[in-house]
Amino acid sequence: MAPLTFKVEPGSKVQLDKIDPRYEAGLDRVQAEADLAKLTYEIDELQELLFGAGTHSLLVIMQGMDTSGKDGTVRKVFSQVSPLGSYVVSFKVPTEDELAHDFLWRVHMKTPGKGMIGIFNRSHYEDVLVVRVHNLVPEAVWRKRYRLINDFEHNLAQSNTIILKFYLHISKKEQEERLLAREQDPTKAWKLAAGDWRERERWDDYMAAYDDALEQCSTDEAPWQIVPADRKWYRNYAVAMTVAETLRGYKGQWLAKLGKVGEERLLELKALRAGQPQ
Amino acid sequence: MAPLTFKVEPGSKVQLDKIDPRYEAGLDRVQAEADLAKLTYEIDELQELLFGAGTHSLLVIMQGMDTSGKDGTVRKVFSQVSPLGSYVVSFKVPTEDELAHDFLWRVHMKTPGKGMIGIFNRSHYEDVLVVRVHNLVPEAVWRKRYRLINDFEHNLAQSNTIILKFYLHISKKEQEERLLAREQDPTKAWKLAAGDWRERERWDDYMAAYDDALEQCSTDEAPWQIVPADRKWYRNYAVAMTVAETLRGYKGQWLAKLGKVGEERLLELKALRAGQPQ
Repeated sequence: MAPLTFKVEPGSKVQLDKIDPRYEAGLDRVQAEADLAKLTYEIDELQELLFGAGTHSLLVIMQGMDTSGKDGTVRKVFSQVSPLGSYVVSFKVPTEDELAHDFLWRVHMKTPGKGMIGIFNRSHYEDVLVVRVHNLVPEAVWRKRYRLINDFEHNLAQSNTIILKFYLHISKKEQEERLLAREQDPTKAWKLAAGDWRERERWDDYMAAYDDALEQCSTDEAPWQIVPADRKWYRNYAVAMTVAETLRGYKGQWLAKLGKVGEERLLELKALRAGQPQ
Repeated sequence: MAPLTFKVEPGSKVQLDKIDPRYEAGLDRVQAEADLAKLTYEIDELQELLFGAGTHSLLVIMQGMDTSGKDGTVRKVFSQVSPLGSYVVSFKVPTEDELAHDFLWRVHMKTPGKGMIGIFNRSHYEDVLVVRVHNLVPEAVWRKRYRLINDFEHNLAQSNTIILKFYLHISKKEQEERLLAREQDPTKAWKLAAGDWRERERWDDYMAAYDDALEQCSTDEAPWQIVPADRKWYRNYAVAMTVAETLRGYKGQWLAKLGKVGEERLLELKALRAGQPQ
């Protein structure tokens, strides 16, 4: 089977303009949507094992241009996962207190503890993306951040954090259509910030910044996945499949660990979850 | 003048048993005590410049065996510094939530923002000290932490954190006297935990762990200072002088920065501080 996402091999060159945002891997849309539904339930089951075993965390990082669907993908892919064992953090313009600290401070604080799934909607990568495009710090400062990011993610990986990083790859044309659609839909217009069209003018600068970030910060422990994202059904399916496949790799050891802890623990967890709002 | 502390040069070998805890650098006690008083006021002035300029932070890490005087030294050296611009954090046995995260998580959260002095009474170094001595994690885990610590401190240094690390070096004999004194003084007996005498039995293991930690984690950005600490007056003076000398090196740039910001800012700060409990 053709791979669903374009995984950035450590040390390889990244040229986003060589990757087709409309790539579909030969999939059928109706089938993919049906499979996605099944995958979301499987991800829920895998999350229960992650939680129960308590030996690993999962950190999911979502990056992409405005309208690329970071929020929408998270809603779909993790739709069945209990809020007890997962959370989403959106990183906005830093506060004064956040700016007074190193750029990794605010993200480190929000990393998932063992048993948890933490999802970052934007992340520390903004500090080599928007910060670079708008010259918010000198080049000498942001250039050093690639290494700092790799060191940081290495530390997380050393404490059993599974790291998945998704770049949602849309075309400039697709973005235009989505921005226009937002403008014209009264229920979505609130999502459109005044700056969105202005940011779009820096498209090429952003692409260059993404090329470098993905190239410099893809490691064996924390590889980047480029997700063709012009088609929402494909994007959701590709991300869900990547999450599920990654977690499946741990299923055996989590079950073994849970076996040791005993069946009661899992029953307790189920009872606990039954009492929680879904 | 003879150096007051034994700075660990990066890459050099550390053998604590070769350093005399009663070393006095030929100083006169009465003179040193008088000079310490002056130094505490100078440190207060330097802290105001650090705060006003807002370009750097100071992180002070205090490590040492039980009764080595971590708390006492901090009280003395920073006695004149405003609580508005400084704070002390004591790191105790990790909580469940802290243990669920990487070992640097809880310390990163407490690092000082720009303009602030943050003092760590114990620190992430416990994760290669007590954790090693008591086999709380496998050797393969704590051995990797030296690099993780260096990466972490490098990140802090890159965002203008000045890092001072003091190991308060007392002799085993001196510790015995202090533990006995605590036992016999009803106003101090509460400080004596049941485990203190028991920990003492692991003295040699702790010394080996300290030798390695100081050797592996002394960098140009964040060097270790070994402070002879059997004599309290000497220990306090040596730490105060090292803090003052370090901050003096930035005085020129902070004054220049404050000059730019204008005199008003400093006046505002003084007014603000006058209204605070000292």
